[in-house]
Amino acid sequence: MVKVGIAGYGIIGQRLADGVVLQKDMELVGVVDVAPTLSVRALKERGMPYKLYAATKDNIPALEEKGIPVSGTMEDLLKEVDIMFDATGAGIGAKNKALYEKHGVKAVFQGGEKNDVADVFFHGYANYEEGVNKNYLKLTSCNTTGLIRAIDCLDREAGIEKVAITIVRRVADPGDYHRGLTNALKVDKAPNHQAVDLMTIMPHIEATGLLVHTPVTHGHFISVVATPKKDMTVEEVIETFEKHQRIRMVSLDEGFEGNASLFRYARDLGNPRGDMYEIAIWRDTVVKSGKDIMFGINIPQEAVTIPETIDAARAALGMQTDGVEGVTKTNEYLGMGAWK
Amino acid sequence: MVKVGIAGYGIIGQRLADGVVLQKDMELVGVVDVAPTLSVRALKERGMPYKLYAATKDNIPALEEKGIPVSGTMEDLLKEVDIMFDATGAGIGAKNKALYEKHGVKAVFQGGEKNDVADVFFHGYANYEEGVNKNYLKLTSCNTTGLIRAIDCLDREAGIEKVAITIVRRVADPGDYHRGLTNALKVDKAPNHQAVDLMTIMPHIEATGLLVHTPVTHGHFISVVATPKKDMTVEEVIETFEKHQRIRMVSLDEGFEGNASLFRYARDLGNPRGDMYEIAIWRDTVVKSGKDIMFGINIPQEAVTIPETIDAARAALGMQTDGVEGVTKTNEYLGMGAWK
Amino acid sequence: MVKVGIAGYGIIGQRLADGVVLQKDMELVGVVDVAPTLSVRALKERGMPYKLYAATKDNIPALEEKGIPVSGTMEDLLKEVDIMFDATGAGIGAKNKALYEKHGVKAVFQGGEKNDVADVFFHGYANYEEGVNKNYLKLTSCNTTGLIRAIDCLDREAGIEKVAITIVRRVADPGDYHRGLTNALKVDKAPNHQAVDLMTIMPHIEATGLLVHTPVTHGHFISVVATPKKDMTVEEVIETFEKHQRIRMVSLDEGFEGNASLFRYARDLGNPRGDMYEIAIWRDTVVKSGKDIMFGINIPQEAVTIPETIDAARAALGMQTDGVEGVTKTNEYLGMGAWK
Amino acid sequence: MVKVGIAGYGIIGQRLADGVVLQKDMELVGVVDVAPTLSVRALKERGMPYKLYAATKDNIPALEEKGIPVSGTMEDLLKEVDIMFDATGAGIGAKNKALYEKHGVKAVFQGGEKNDVADVFFHGYANYEEGVNKNYLKLTSCNTTGLIRAIDCLDREAGIEKVAITIVRRVADPGDYHRGLTNALKVDKAPNHQAVDLMTIMPHIEATGLLVHTPVTHGHFISVVATPKKDMTVEEVIETFEKHQRIRMVSLDEGFEGNASLFRYARDLGNPRGDMYEIAIWRDTVVKSGKDIMFGINIPQEAVTIPETIDAARAALGMQTDGVEGVTKTNEYLGMGAWK
Repeated sequence: MVKVGIAGYGIIGQRLADGVVLQKDMELVGVVDVAPTLSVRALKERGMPYKLYAATKDNIPALEEKGIPVSGTMEDLLKEVDIMFDATGAGIGAKNKALYEKHGVKAVFQGGEKNDVADVFFHGYANYEEGVNKNYLKLTSCNTTGLIRAIDCLDREAGIEKVAITIVRRVADPGDYHRGLTNALKVDKAPNHQAVDLMTIMPHIEATGLLVHTPVTHGHFISVVATPKKDMTVEEVIETFEKHQRIRMVSLDEGFEGNASLFRYARDLGNPRGDMYEIAIWRDTVVKSGKDIMFGINIPQEAVTIPETIDAARAALGMQTDGVEGVTKTNEYLGMGAWK
Repeated sequence: MVKVGIAGYGIIGQRLADGVVLQKDMELVGVVDVAPTLSVRALKERGMPYKLYAATKDNIPALEEKGIPVSGTMEDLLKEVDIMFDATGAGIGAKNKALYEKHGVKAVFQGGEKNDVADVFFHGYANYEEGVNKNYLKLTSCNTTGLIRAIDCLDREAGIEKVAITIVRRVADPGDYHRGLTNALKVDKAPNHQAVDLMTIMPHIEATGLLVHTPVTHGHFISVVATPKKDMTVEEVIETFEKHQRIRMVSLDEGFEGNASLFRYARDLGNPRGDMYEIAIWRDTVVKSGKDIMFGINIPQEAVTIPETIDAARAALGMQTDGVEGVTKTNEYLGMGAWK
Repeated sequence: MVKVGIAGYGIIGQRLADGVVLQKDMELVGVVDVAPTLSVRALKERGMPYKLYAATKDNIPALEEKGIPVSGTMEDLLKEVDIMFDATGAGIGAKNKALYEKHGVKAVFQGGEKNDVADVFFHGYANYEEGVNKNYLKLTSCNTTGLIRAIDCLDREAGIEKVAITIVRRVADPGDYHRGLTNALKVDKAPNHQAVDLMTIMPHIEATGLLVHTPVTHGHFISVVATPKKDMTVEEVIETFEKHQRIRMVSLDEGFEGNASLFRYARDLGNPRGDMYEIAIWRDTVVKSGKDIMFGINIPQEAVTIPETIDAARAALGMQTDGVEGVTKTNEYLGMGAWK
Repeated sequence: MVKVGIAGYGIIGQRLADGVVLQKDMELVGVVDVAPTLSVRALKERGMPYKLYAATKDNIPALEEKGIPVSGTMEDLLKEVDIMFDATGAGIGAKNKALYEKHGVKAVFQGGEKNDVADVFFHGYANYEEGVNKNYLKLTSCNTTGLIRAIDCLDREAGIEKVAITIVRRVADPGDYHRGLTNALKVDKAPNHQAVDLMTIMPHIEATGLLVHTPVTHGHFISVVATPKKDMTVEEVIETFEKHQRIRMVSLDEGFEGNASLFRYARDLGNPRGDMYEIAIWRDTVVKSGKDIMFGINIPQEAVTIPETIDAARAALGMQTDGVEGVTKTNEYLGMGAWK
């Protein structure tokens, strides 16, 4: 039984906790935060299904004043765990790393950290083996994680030479008040980091891309133009995607009209927090231009990196040294793959 | 054990199903729908925790073609239930009523139906006793249901003479594609129906109001100006609300910045579908002008009517003939009242 | 011919420039800004219809590098003008005041400054005479300016005792990228400053209010509950508003469905920048509850304060010492009052 | 002096009127509409700078009841004009065509009509000569019009083989209440019609594309992946675009952060209705992947087709038989090309 701690109990941290709880070969020892945020208050109202640790001693009074039970500091937690999932804000993970090293604890960082925080820039499907028995892994960001699922499985089938992506980015998560756009699209400098990151993880592919922020909260949309080495028909592309356990193929005529349909569907499924681990690809968007394949992906930004983060723990701790075995175990415990 | 059926498996119907399943003295026999909507597909993907009936024989082939197991028609369901919750689209409930009468089944209609479909226009707190042993009850709409909770409890404390409300209405539910507003406020003719409905349920109060539609999906906001007979301090108003099991008092400094904070909090609580049964009132919005009391309410439109609809079944079937006993039983089974 | 300068060439500053240019008894000497913003670039592309001054010498190189002709610094401008309209960001006006005093130049500040920057907190209709021959005036904010127009004219007719307002606030202006809300309402602590400001300007009225930010850009909406001393019918209220030159009465059946209709209408009228100086009140929203009058106002936030700011110059410079004469002159040159 | 009439006085019709008024070799005889819409009311409030005709006799009473001066019916107008710009709703243009034929009047239809309504599917830059002296021309839609400007000028420079586009579509115009999206992206079936239309106008290019609707009102965004025959550097691509009179090159560091910046800039320029005839391309988005060129376009949907529609009149009436002369004349009168 591997012992896991989580630093940062926000959008990602809470969902990592949900995911770890489902892994039968992992135990969630506790989570770390700095203040009585809404998420921490909800943990208390739920009856503390797992323990909360304060980041430092200084954070304890503010938490206890609100009646939140605190089990100690992050250093106390570090004495009890094998690995930390670091889901703190960008830059804080790099500072936490010194503590992880001090306590000899491995760690998986989220996409907001710089690459040099980790030994390996990791994706469960694309380079699992590179993470095996390493100490510090950094996960790809939400868009890159979902994008690589799709590109990797086409790459295994037909070899991918080149990719040009357009990201229609959701600008905030539901409940965010610290950022937002109102009646505006916002353009980023090209190429976007997701294209660059894809080339880091899959160096044999040339990638570029544009990104536009849009005033919505339920899921990014990525439009992909991929050039395969071997010609594939639209039907072969769809079949390839349908075999993937972390891809959900959907259609407009089923009622999946866009990102918001998928959010609604996840709630209707009774998924915890209305979350979705799978990316979705619309069958109706798979088209070709010459040999190039074009298709559209929905990225459920709040939960999409959870499976690959759990994969990272499996690799780092050597729980499974083979990628297929590792991701399959994660998928099994997360209950993925039921949709066919 | 009272046997319940639900007609219409959409936003409200699904949540009524969730709520009935939690009532230990009710059994959900099945739900009725007409087509393989996303909600029906999700029911299937969840493994059919309860049975689905087709509205008519004609609807069966389209459902079965998508692999949805169908247990019969609505008439088959009506033979097995004591009461129906009718959550079909506006106007359809009136047509269904003929079937309910034919089978001697009682029914509770949602706010979209016209008042004359029912014997009583019902609210669990304001007029429970009027619904006792009646055959056909119609519930107030989501805004009116939440509004009456707040007005009724002030009325019991200090007597309310007059109410002027401004409704900042969410224009669509998450996942809605058949309606929407983009960068626009939409003004309705005054007075709004919620003020008129409040006077129907509570005829001793004079009410009027304005309504503005806004491009958001997570909860309506109602600004209330209420004139009490007896003067109340701001503190007394807050205390009165805090005692109510279906009202959640929140503050800006806790992190509840608006409707979206409450939606996020409900998801973080692990509530089914991320739903909230309670209305929320901000302590920071309770102010006075002369004797008049002003405050702001958040109405979680998807789930707010569920408790009062269950109250209606308790009244109609005479399960509890006293209002306090009726609503208390509903609250107990829904797990409400933990927040203080 | 009175000589006017404008500090801050943003949303408000540009529109003040438009308004001053239309006044036949005022001359716009120039405008001041600090950087080659889009507004400054547009001024250049339009061929510099008036002069631009840099706030300080330090700002000149960055402006000239982009080819923007600079006529000197703000101090150079101050030597040539009788009065400055200060439309800089909040807090900067207070700093500029030292310069205005040094050069013996009068000034009108916008609502973002603190009240103590000025001798008088000013509104053209409610307290024109208090501003006559004063040196420093501060205008009410956009919402308060529009609100007072409506309350003042009811007050003159029937005496207003008490006001409770609900502001549905547009969260950003068209083109704003530095602030925004996405799918969220944001609640403010009550009472809002607009109610407090109204009591400062009209101390015989008791006022309170709530404010909710909404993700739209075209106009605030204010729902007003006003208690008059003398009873007025709905028709009398409408007639009173219709006589006001800065109020435009509109109806839903004409096609004015909300704030965005008014924005579109102003563009269709060919108004400069698609601006509207008038507030709009919907006839369909004027209702009563007991003696209380309720109605809904649209506040075109970008341009609504322009007329009252020009009134302030008339008062401060003693161009007209009588309020009716002052506002009438402003209205005449702005071309207001055509709509009846 | 060529005599022009306009059918349909909505978003496009009003802007065509603005554009025709600026053409020194065209005379706007009048515009046609069916009801006292806001646009028609604004025309009246502006003092009827041009005449209004009712579509049929039956429409006259409703217009006159609102005090709108009516100069006759569309048939009366048809007796006086050489060409009609038909900007009525989709499908109505096809019905109007019978009247145009009866009166021997040429016509230019907008993109909403089916292609078979016209002799030529027209774009001023891509196929001007095909429209010369033809009777019925149909313009490309707003997205296709702007897209072809960019593709055509690259095609002339380097030859374009293949294009894959992703359209981030604004879902409604400012002031629209009859359609809208709230917190949702909506996906369309691929390939989108714009890609298909591009191939119709430029049959030597293979094109495909995806389209996602977004809840904004100020401009579409098109992400283009274009495969040239001849390799071009990023600098050459930018230079090619900069020479085009209907393309405005912009940069993020100038303050053009997205579609809303361009809308604001057009208002600041004092353009009528805050309109922009040019498409904008961000220098920051021009990147390459292998030989493929990628870039992002802003399409100002309300006004972008005006220049090409005027080109169409020049072609159909043989005012200029050479394309370069035709578009240059249009540009001159519209005041385009000042930006370099």
